[in-house]
Amino acid sequence: MGNRHIQGIIPPMITPLGDMNSLDIPGLEKLVEHILSGGVQGLFILGTTGEAQSLSYELRHELIERVCRQVGKRVPVLVGISDTSLVESLHLAEKAFAEGATAVVSAPPYYYAPAQQELIDFYQGLADVLPLPLFLYNMPSHVKVKIEPATLKAIAEHPNVIGLKDSSADMVYFHSLIQIMKDKADFSLLVGPEELTAEAVLLGADGGVNGGANMFPSLYVTMYKAAKSRDLDTVLALQQQIMYISNSIYKIGKYGSSYLKGVKCACSLLGLCSDYMALPFQRFNAPERKRVQQILETLGYTVVNP
Amino acid sequence: MGNRHIQGIIPPMITPLGDMNSLDIPGLEKLVEHILSGGVQGLFILGTTGEAQSLSYELRHELIERVCRQVGKRVPVLVGISDTSLVESLHLAEKAFAEGATAVVSAPPYYYAPAQQELIDFYQGLADVLPLPLFLYNMPSHVKVKIEPATLKAIAEHPNVIGLKDSSADMVYFHSLIQIMKDKADFSLLVGPEELTAEAVLLGADGGVNGGANMFPSLYVTMYKAAKSRDLDTVLALQQQIMYISNSIYKIGKYGSSYLKGVKCACSLLGLCSDYMALPFQRFNAPERKRVQQILETLGYTVVNP
Amino acid sequence: MGNRHIQGIIPPMITPLGDMNSLDIPGLEKLVEHILSGGVQGLFILGTTGEAQSLSYELRHELIERVCRQVGKRVPVLVGISDTSLVESLHLAEKAFAEGATAVVSAPPYYYAPAQQELIDFYQGLADVLPLPLFLYNMPSHVKVKIEPATLKAIAEHPNVIGLKDSSADMVYFHSLIQIMKDKADFSLLVGPEELTAEAVLLGADGGVNGGANMFPSLYVTMYKAAKSRDLDTVLALQQQIMYISNSIYKIGKYGSSYLKGVKCACSLLGLCSDYMALPFQRFNAPERKRVQQILETLGYTVVNP
Amino acid sequence: MGNRHIQGIIPPMITPLGDMNSLDIPGLEKLVEHILSGGVQGLFILGTTGEAQSLSYELRHELIERVCRQVGKRVPVLVGISDTSLVESLHLAEKAFAEGATAVVSAPPYYYAPAQQELIDFYQGLADVLPLPLFLYNMPSHVKVKIEPATLKAIAEHPNVIGLKDSSADMVYFHSLIQIMKDKADFSLLVGPEELTAEAVLLGADGGVNGGANMFPSLYVTMYKAAKSRDLDTVLALQQQIMYISNSIYKIGKYGSSYLKGVKCACSLLGLCSDYMALPFQRFNAPERKRVQQILETLGYTVVNP
Repeated sequence: MGNRHIQGIIPPMITPLGDMNSLDIPGLEKLVEHILSGGVQGLFILGTTGEAQSLSYELRHELIERVCRQVGKRVPVLVGISDTSLVESLHLAEKAFAEGATAVVSAPPYYYAPAQQELIDFYQGLADVLPLPLFLYNMPSHVKVKIEPATLKAIAEHPNVIGLKDSSADMVYFHSLIQIMKDKADFSLLVGPEELTAEAVLLGADGGVNGGANMFPSLYVTMYKAAKSRDLDTVLALQQQIMYISNSIYKIGKYGSSYLKGVKCACSLLGLCSDYMALPFQRFNAPERKRVQQILETLGYTVVNP
Repeated sequence: MGNRHIQGIIPPMITPLGDMNSLDIPGLEKLVEHILSGGVQGLFILGTTGEAQSLSYELRHELIERVCRQVGKRVPVLVGISDTSLVESLHLAEKAFAEGATAVVSAPPYYYAPAQQELIDFYQGLADVLPLPLFLYNMPSHVKVKIEPATLKAIAEHPNVIGLKDSSADMVYFHSLIQIMKDKADFSLLVGPEELTAEAVLLGADGGVNGGANMFPSLYVTMYKAAKSRDLDTVLALQQQIMYISNSIYKIGKYGSSYLKGVKCACSLLGLCSDYMALPFQRFNAPERKRVQQILETLGYTVVNP
Repeated sequence: MGNRHIQGIIPPMITPLGDMNSLDIPGLEKLVEHILSGGVQGLFILGTTGEAQSLSYELRHELIERVCRQVGKRVPVLVGISDTSLVESLHLAEKAFAEGATAVVSAPPYYYAPAQQELIDFYQGLADVLPLPLFLYNMPSHVKVKIEPATLKAIAEHPNVIGLKDSSADMVYFHSLIQIMKDKADFSLLVGPEELTAEAVLLGADGGVNGGANMFPSLYVTMYKAAKSRDLDTVLALQQQIMYISNSIYKIGKYGSSYLKGVKCACSLLGLCSDYMALPFQRFNAPERKRVQQILETLGYTVVNP
Repeated sequence: MGNRHIQGIIPPMITPLGDMNSLDIPGLEKLVEHILSGGVQGLFILGTTGEAQSLSYELRHELIERVCRQVGKRVPVLVGISDTSLVESLHLAEKAFAEGATAVVSAPPYYYAPAQQELIDFYQGLADVLPLPLFLYNMPSHVKVKIEPATLKAIAEHPNVIGLKDSSADMVYFHSLIQIMKDKADFSLLVGPEELTAEAVLLGADGGVNGGANMFPSLYVTMYKAAKSRDLDTVLALQQQIMYISNSIYKIGKYGSSYLKGVKCACSLLGLCSDYMALPFQRFNAPERKRVQQILETLGYTVVNP
C-alpha cells in the first residue's frame, strides 16, 4: 500500500450541488483544481463539511468516481464512509476501492450512541472487511460519543487502521492521543478545527483537515509548513488571519451550521462552485451573502460572483 | 385515505435477525402474530427499537415487504423512514407505499443538528413528495434536537402530516403539544415510553408506542384501555408491573442500550425470535440472559428457550 | 416530631425584595397571607423560586425568622438550606430550628458535581447533624447531578430523612422513586413542576411544590384535591389552565429564568409585593410586564398595580 | 495598584484541611513555602482546586488572612470570591482587601444559569463595588455557562476588570479571547488546564493557573519559561511529563473529581500537608493512594509520607 502515513493539510471538500440530488459538475471540477493548486497533501471527500449524510448514496457514489478520476493519484484521496449501518459503510468503501481511493474515513455510528466496547466491536468488524485502510473520525458533537484514548489504542492494533481525525476541538484529549500512540510513529493524527492546527502541529500532530482550505488552500498549507518548521512568527501572523476567518465567515446568523454555510457561500462568491445546500440546510440569504462578500474583500480576495 | 386517526397501542417492533444482513424469517413471522394476538391497534416497524439505522437498505426493504404482506391490513402498519438524507427517506417511503403500509414515521435528520426553521423546511419538503401520510417522531436523545411545539404547529399545517410520536419522556413538553394541537382533533399524539402511557392517555394522548408490547402486547393494550376508560385502580396495578419491567429487564448491565437488548433477549427467551443484534450492539451475554430469564419467571411467564 | 408526612400543595415562595440586600416587608407579609388564604398545606421558603442562592445569609436568616413567626404554625414551614458547604447548610438549619420551622430542604451541593456515593456521604453527614427532618431536593438542571433512585433508597434509611421534592420534570424517574419507596408509606414524594402535579398525584405522589401557587394558590390546591379524589373532569379542565399559564407567563422573553421573572412580575401586578430581583437576574421590562398584565386579564384576574 | 498585568504560573492552591471546618495549619505553611520555592509568579487561593465552595465562610476568611500574611507580598495573591450571591462575594473581597491581596477572582454565579446579558449585569455590578481588581473565571463545566467573547469584551470595559482565567479547555474559544482583547495589552489571559499551558503561551496567553504546581511548582514554571522563550525542544519534553501526570495521577478511580483528589493525595505523600477533603468529596482510599505513590516514584519524586 506504499506510504500510508498521511501528513499535511487534507481539506474536507464541500460537495458542489446542482440541486437536491445532482452534482454541480463544472463547479466540482473547478473546486478540485483550486484546492490542489494550493499545494495540499491530500483530499477528503464525503466528510461533515461535504454534507455526506444529507446526500443519497447514488450521489455519493458518483462523487467518489468523479473526484478519484479527476485527482488521478496526484494526492491521496480519503473517502468518508460514515454510516449508521456497517453494511452501508462497506458498500461505500467498495466503491472507493474500485475508484482507486487511498483510504476511508469513518465516524462512529451516529444514531444509537455506542459504549466504548461497542465502538471497538464496530470498528474491528469494519476493519476486518474493508478493502482499504481506515481512518477513524472523532466527532462527538455530531455522533454523541467520543473515541476514548484507550479505545483508540485497542482499535489501532488492527493493521488496517492507519490514523484518526479529531474534530472534537478538545486539545487535552488530542494530547492524550499523541501520548498513547507515541510508539506507533506511522499512525496519523490529524486535527479538524483549523483554529487548532498550528498548536497541534507544533506539539506533534501530523496535519489538519481544515475546511477553510476549500476557499484558501495555500493559507492553511503555509500555516502547516510554518508550524512544522517551528517558524513561530509566521505561525502567529497566519493564526490571526485564521481566527479572523473563523470569527467572521463562520459566525454569520444564528445557525449551528454557519461554518458550513459560510464556506459554501464563500466558494460561490470566489467563482468556484454553487452554494446550493442539501436539506435540512439552505444556503445563506442575500444579506448574509453580502456579509461574506465584505469579509472576503476585507481579506483581499476578489469576488467574481457577487 | 380512510381513518387517519391512529389510536391505541402501536408496538415498535424489534427486527428479528439471522445475522448482520439477514432476517430471522420464522422468528419474524412468529413475532408479528404474537404481537397482533395481543389486540394491538397498529404496528410500527423500522423505529429505534427496530434497530432500523443499523440495517442495510436492502434489509429494510425486505422487512417492509414481509411485514406488510403478513399483516394484510389487519391493523395499520407504520414504517420508519428516518434518515439523514431526504432522498433516502423518500426511497423507503416509496417501498412502504408499494407494499400497502398505512403511514410513514420520520425523526429529524440525525447527523447535522438542524435549527427549528430547518426542521420545518425539511419536513415540509418531505411531506410534499411522500406518497403516504407522515408521522413526526420526536427523539431528542438520539437526534440531538427537539421538535418544539411551535415547530410542530407549523409543520402540522401540511395536510400530509397526521401525528407525532414523542419519545422525549418530557411530559411538560407533551402537555404543550396537547395544548397547541387541541383544535385539530384528528391529529394523533402518541407517547413512546411505556412508563408514561398511563398518564399521557389519562390526560389526552391518543396512545402509546411501547417497546414492551413486543414481549407482552396484551399488558399494554389492557393498560391503554383502562386509562382510556378512567379505571384508575387497574391503571395503578398495571403501572406497577410496567415499572417493574422497566426497572429490571431494561436496566441490566452498564449499557445505554439495555432497553433494546433486554426486549430482544426476552423475546428470544419467550421463544419468539432470535436475539441477534446488528452492530454496534451485541446480544446480552449468558449471565445477563440468565437475569432476564429470572425476571420473566418472577413475572409468571414461561421461558421456552432458556 | 408529630406528623412528618407532608402532603398537598406546598408553594415554593418567591422572596419579596426591597433592594439587593433587603426584604420588601409589607410585600412579604401580604404574600404569605395571600398564599395561606388559598388553603395550601405548607410553605417552602428559600428554594429555587425563592432566589435563595442569590441572597446574602443575613437576608436568608431574616426571612426565616419573619416567615416562621408570621405563619405561626398554621401550616408546616419548610426551609431551603441548599448550599455548597455542609457547614453553611447547617447554619441555615440551626436558624430554621430556632424559629420553629418544620423541616429543611437540601439540593445536592451545586458547584462540584458529586458522584452518587458522594451524594450519599454528603446527605448522611448532613442528616446526622441536622436539628430538623430533611427533605431531599432533586434538581439536576441546576445542580448537574440527579439523585438516582438507588441513592435515594440508601439515604432514606436515615431516620431524619422524610421526603424528596423532585424538580427534574422526568416522570419516568419519578415513577421509579414511587416504586423504590413503596414500602415506606410515610415518606413524602412531591413533584416540583406544576404541569406534572396532576398526573403525579393520580399515580401516587403526595403533592406538589408549585410556583404558580404564589399567584393563584387556590387553583393548585383545587387541582391537587381533584387529582386526589380522582375527579378527572376537573383535573382536565384545570390542567388546561395550568398549561396556559405555563406557556404564557413563564415563556416571555428569551430568558432561561422566564418562569421566575414571570411569577414575580405577576405577583407585583396582583398587588402582592415588589418584583425586584437579586442579581444575576433583573425584573421584566415594561413591554414584558405589559404582556403579563394582558395574560392575567385574559385569565380573569384583576390587576391592581399595572 | 502598581503592575496589574498578571503573568506566569499562578498555582491554584489546594486548601490543607484538618477536618471539615478547620485548616491544617502546619501543612498550609509548608505548602505555601513549597509552592513559592518553585519560582511561581503568583498564588491563587479559594479556586476550584481550593475546594472553596465546600468550605465555610469563616474558614475562607481564615485562609485569606493566613496566606496573605505568610506570602507577605513576595508574589501577588489572587483570592477566589466566586459565589451565587453578589453580597457574599463582596464580603469575601473585603476580607481579601483588608489582608492585602492583589486581586479577586470570580466565576459566574453557579446555581441559576445566567444569560450573557445577565452575566454582564452581574459582573458590572460586582466590579462597581469591589475594593480590588477583578479577574473573571470562565468555568463552564462547573457553572453551566460560558463567558462568551463578546460578553468578555463588554465586561472588560470596566477599569476594575484586569484579566480572565479560562478553565474551559476550549482552545478555539481561548484564541477568540486573544483576538478580541488584542488591543488591550495589559489584560491578562490565563489558561487553567496545565495540559494546554504550553500551546496557550506559545500563541499569546499570559500564563497558566495549573493545579499540578501544588505538587511540582518548578516543572510548570520551567514549561512556562520555555514556551515564552520559544524553546520548543524543552516544551515538547516537559509536555510529555505533564501529560503523563495528567493521564495517571488525575485519572485514578471513577470520580469526576479524580484530579482534585489526586493532587491532594500527592501533596500528602510528598509530606506537604493533609489530604483531608471537605464533603461531598473524600480522600483517596488506600489502594488509590498506593497507586499515586507508584506514579510519584516513577516520576522520580521521594515519597516521605507513604
